[in-house]
Amino acid sequence: MSVYNIVMSQDKFIQRDQLTYPFEERGLQFGDGVYEVIRIYDGVFYLLDEHMNRLYRSLKEVKIDFMTNKSDLENRLHELLTQNDMHTDGQVYLQITRGSANRTHTFPVETPPNIYAYLLEAPRPTTILNTGVPVITQPDQRWKRRDIKSLNLLPNVLAKQAAADVGAHEAILYEDGFVTECSSSNIYLVKDDEIHTHPANHSILNGCVRLAIKRFSEAAQIPFIEEAFALEAIETADELFLSSSTNEIMPIIKVDHLQIADGKPGPVTRRLQKAYIEDAKIKQEANN
Amino acid sequence: MSVYNIVMSQDKFIQRDQLTYPFEERGLQFGDGVYEVIRIYDGVFYLLDEHMNRLYRSLKEVKIDFMTNKSDLENRLHELLTQNDMHTDGQVYLQITRGSANRTHTFPVETPPNIYAYLLEAPRPTTILNTGVPVITQPDQRWKRRDIKSLNLLPNVLAKQAAADVGAHEAILYEDGFVTECSSSNIYLVKDDEIHTHPANHSILNGCVRLAIKRFSEAAQIPFIEEAFALEAIETADELFLSSSTNEIMPIIKVDHLQIADGKPGPVTRRLQKAYIEDAKIKQEANN
Repeated sequence: MSVYNIVMSQDKFIQRDQLTYPFEERGLQFGDGVYEVIRIYDGVFYLLDEHMNRLYRSLKEVKIDFMTNKSDLENRLHELLTQNDMHTDGQVYLQITRGSANRTHTFPVETPPNIYAYLLEAPRPTTILNTGVPVITQPDQRWKRRDIKSLNLLPNVLAKQAAADVGAHEAILYEDGFVTECSSSNIYLVKDDEIHTHPANHSILNGCVRLAIKRFSEAAQIPFIEEAFALEAIETADELFLSSSTNEIMPIIKVDHLQIADGKPGPVTRRLQKAYIEDAKIKQEANN
Repeated sequence: MSVYNIVMSQDKFIQRDQLTYPFEERGLQFGDGVYEVIRIYDGVFYLLDEHMNRLYRSLKEVKIDFMTNKSDLENRLHELLTQNDMHTDGQVYLQITRGSANRTHTFPVETPPNIYAYLLEAPRPTTILNTGVPVITQPDQRWKRRDIKSLNLLPNVLAKQAAADVGAHEAILYEDGFVTECSSSNIYLVKDDEIHTHPANHSILNGCVRLAIKRFSEAAQIPFIEEAFALEAIETADELFLSSSTNEIMPIIKVDHLQIADGKPGPVTRRLQKAYIEDAKIKQEANN
């Protein structure tokens, strides 16, 4: 995915080649920062409020004193679109670290946080949204505050690579016999026309698309049950799907060697995908 | 702690100001890398073999294909000392990431790892090695592979800062009622002339000074019992101490509001400190 030329660095807009970091940067030495990836359709941010709310919550939880308020930051993100004359489908990656300072575990004094953001090309994954994807299962090795969208992503990286190694799209993570989420997405099980997903506590990241799916389900009067489901419940699931800003609402058709139902995206998943397209005001394409 | 002028970047030696990273660096976006901090006394590395062994083990566990062999890397580290004409007490910080590439959770293809190393001034903490330090207790929030010395250090940072906030030196981490280690050091409890410490499994980092202490204990015929001890066992401990490359063998004299024994470093701790000074060939100073 290629990066647009003009990037945001603090409150400036610069050429991407000019954006570099010193080696004593807390993001680089401690993963000491938080981030967001926000979807863009036709040059317009989708679920921006939800992402901004989560970003500021993450900052508060890790005690990074980021002084810019939400509306000023939103304005800067809109300016980033304008500066790049961006009108297509893509993403913005936005990261805030505790700053660059001599390495100490304790917070550095009088060090401003570092923020940068850049735009990426990101076409919708229309083919696999229609066919669904295979996934694998992996133990959840992450830390205990997964509700914070932090830069400590090594366990996620290792789980995603384990999936890629066998040609799978994602890794379902489980802990103590229960499914938490996937390496970079939330996961949902449909059984008897009810949606089951892990509650939004410290054990998972509360996805912005997850919030949208909850809203879609309520509007469609589909029960949305926020209770962890057992790994074995997958064997008798009617449908299984995952969600993220990159993957939208993605049907899962295979878990390890097990085919889910008839191996095709199910009706509840399809219905939610339609709601997503309407909510995000996505122009219908030929293959939808 | 100030940084020496000449730093190592890949197989080159450059001025520290020239060492910068692009914003799409896996260390910066995923904490996707490993590191070591190695002690230097009078310009000589201490426990270098132990650090090299752990570094290459960490690389293997996170599947970073670092092609330089141990002895070549050791030669480069020695060259770093020479280039900086370093003959005092300090540290080397050494970090290897999976490299700089467009952001994807999966491993990037044909991307070489990035390595850098730099020297730091680091005088021995002689005063507190004599008086001991106060610490606090915190829940262990880290991921499940703490045996890997990775850059995912946000929980460590938050625990250490919680300690600093109340004037304490470190945070003892506990999980399910048992003590694992501290935010950046191992911990040991002495009771009835026996040393108790958490076994070196996935729940703790196996410190290089920990390995040395095990060796000192065996030589001195002090039982070194590798079994987790309960948080409550601290209340009746005869001695408590921690260890790290920065802290050496550091007596703990207070845990939260509880004074340990008579509030002074105990005889087993003192004996191990003496063994450390001999082993590291540290010149005796006036206050030791």
